[in-house]
Amino acid sequence: MLNILAAGLIAMIITLVGTRWWIRYLKRHHYGQFIRDDGPTTHHVKRGTPTMGGAIVLLAIVCGYFGSHLLLTLGGRAGVSGLVEEGQPLTLSGLLALGLMVALGAVGFADDWAKIRHSRSLGLHAKAKLILQTIIGLAFAYVALHFPNQAGITPASPAISGQRDVSWLQLPIWLAIIWILFIIAAYSNGTNLTDGLDGLLTGSAAMAFLAYGMLNFWQWNQECSRNLEAGCYAVRDPLDLAVVAAAVAGALVGFLWWNSSPAQIFLGDTGSLALGGGFAALTIMTRTELVGVVIGLLFVLEALSVILQVGFFKATGGRRLFKMAPLHHHFEMMGWQEVTVVVRLWLVAGIAVMAGLGLFYGEWVLAQ
Amino acid sequence: MLNILAAGLIAMIITLVGTRWWIRYLKRHHYGQFIRDDGPTTHHVKRGTPTMGGAIVLLAIVCGYFGSHLLLTLGGRAGVSGLVEEGQPLTLSGLLALGLMVALGAVGFADDWAKIRHSRSLGLHAKAKLILQTIIGLAFAYVALHFPNQAGITPASPAISGQRDVSWLQLPIWLAIIWILFIIAAYSNGTNLTDGLDGLLTGSAAMAFLAYGMLNFWQWNQECSRNLEAGCYAVRDPLDLAVVAAAVAGALVGFLWWNSSPAQIFLGDTGSLALGGGFAALTIMTRTELVGVVIGLLFVLEALSVILQVGFFKATGGRRLFKMAPLHHHFEMMGWQEVTVVVRLWLVAGIAVMAGLGLFYGEWVLAQ
Repeated sequence: MLNILAAGLIAMIITLVGTRWWIRYLKRHHYGQFIRDDGPTTHHVKRGTPTMGGAIVLLAIVCGYFGSHLLLTLGGRAGVSGLVEEGQPLTLSGLLALGLMVALGAVGFADDWAKIRHSRSLGLHAKAKLILQTIIGLAFAYVALHFPNQAGITPASPAISGQRDVSWLQLPIWLAIIWILFIIAAYSNGTNLTDGLDGLLTGSAAMAFLAYGMLNFWQWNQECSRNLEAGCYAVRDPLDLAVVAAAVAGALVGFLWWNSSPAQIFLGDTGSLALGGGFAALTIMTRTELVGVVIGLLFVLEALSVILQVGFFKATGGRRLFKMAPLHHHFEMMGWQEVTVVVRLWLVAGIAVMAGLGLFYGEWVLAQ
Repeated sequence: MLNILAAGLIAMIITLVGTRWWIRYLKRHHYGQFIRDDGPTTHHVKRGTPTMGGAIVLLAIVCGYFGSHLLLTLGGRAGVSGLVEEGQPLTLSGLLALGLMVALGAVGFADDWAKIRHSRSLGLHAKAKLILQTIIGLAFAYVALHFPNQAGITPASPAISGQRDVSWLQLPIWLAIIWILFIIAAYSNGTNLTDGLDGLLTGSAAMAFLAYGMLNFWQWNQECSRNLEAGCYAVRDPLDLAVVAAAVAGALVGFLWWNSSPAQIFLGDTGSLALGGGFAALTIMTRTELVGVVIGLLFVLEALSVILQVGFFKATGGRRLFKMAPLHHHFEMMGWQEVTVVVRLWLVAGIAVMAGLGLFYGEWVLAQ
């Protein structure tokens, strides 16, 4: 429990305090965002707002995770009662989630950087980005499927999961790898698309990761290796994944202070790709892929709106399903103010998060 | 569990759908808000926005609570498995919380109505309001302290509570009544003052009541009458209080859809007094008065800012502590945009809610 709180607090304090400094640094060097020309024209005033806020968020997450482990280990060694059990060692699952976030964040950083250097909104070549993301995803999938703990449980499983692994949906290993790649690509694109209005991704992702923190904590409480009762969970390192989730949620809460309307800094691809990767890692490693779709519903809807828009446009030879995709621009085009869209989509995200947690907890209740 | 979900869902759907109709009705009859002349001048554009949104919120809460009970009772009678145990009867604690909200909401309604009729921002005479609130508080305190269940537990206790009743802080009955009156007055004033920016009270109260829903559910899980383990809770009807809390949180989420910036309707005193009363009732009856101060920290800070401002002004013979009280106007005067103040104070409220839940859960962990 304490390590989860410590990770969230450390990460939050770093973004709360550090983002101000990071904004100043970026502004001094004129690292502003170039707004896409095909977006709503009201967004052109945002030109010049620094992007790459994701870098400070990532730093906060990494410091929150390692800082919490360090603090509790030192406290345990110093003999503070209660901290010895709490200061559990670093785990493969925690490091994998963190590694995926940092690696995808680095791709996003290269992209953000290319945009600033070449003063254009499009960034890295799409092909180069896709290749890099695939390599990172492959590395994640390989490690996650191959390193069991003493109980024989690997971080990820080759099964499709609902609230836990579905026994009759075991995939052959090559298909499991493709499935993992797909989930990572889907969420990192979804969060990337969601990151289009001030605070929209930051706030909705904060809720989603907070929910995963609670879900992971519950999985740890009911872990089969500790508690062999009906409905126990066969997952690897749930407590440490809760530490990661708390660090992400904490970092986002602190960042939202600066990123809420009118945003003084954006997450950028650095942040949005990292967050999508982190969310994908959590849904995969906790075996809650269906629950994840509900908890991360906003990201799914935003991605779907683009796919549907393009598909409909092609199928009908030029008609549009939405006034503009992704989804949030559609509502802006309907005349809603930007902040109204943000708060309303936060509400949608919040309701989805509650529904996802309900779905998860309900399955456990029924298993009793 | 199902009754909690049903109450929240019913209430949310009513405010989501019904508020649009309520706004139209109020506008057609020109029931707009008159903005106080001593507030920030930027708020003068809000003149004419309908107030008394609290009426639809209260309606949704009442329908959510009774609708959920009705639904599950009927389902249980129809033999739907699992619903028989869920459709528990109405409880005194649930009805008391609801009654306090409705009664204080009625005082607020009279106040809102007087404002509209007399076209002024000040409403009911302060003295009449105070007398009415005191009578309602006395009735609540009397019933809450005098009707035990079979286990001998009354809805409220004559002790001051932290995370549970503190045994050496037992008050004589007359002092317990004053203490309860004080808590009700403090929170209903706090929420009343918080209700000054678009969505500020609605969003922060939604989080606070959601937290109480979880806290009450946990208290039910660990109730001494069901589960005589270390750290069990001696409270009356925690599950039904969770139903009330969920109905309030659901109603507020649906209302926030319309109340977020730019607000199409305000809660008015109808809503803010009812919410303050409901929150006070929950902290009193769940014996978590200290935890309540943390979960409802924003309301406490807003009230404190006014007290400090007035006290400082008088003590120094005319100097001000804040640029303007209550708190949120101070930040507006510092040049923050209204939405920025709202989102940042939501963050403060959200962090406080998490801290309050942590404080509550931590005490239980230590009691194991």
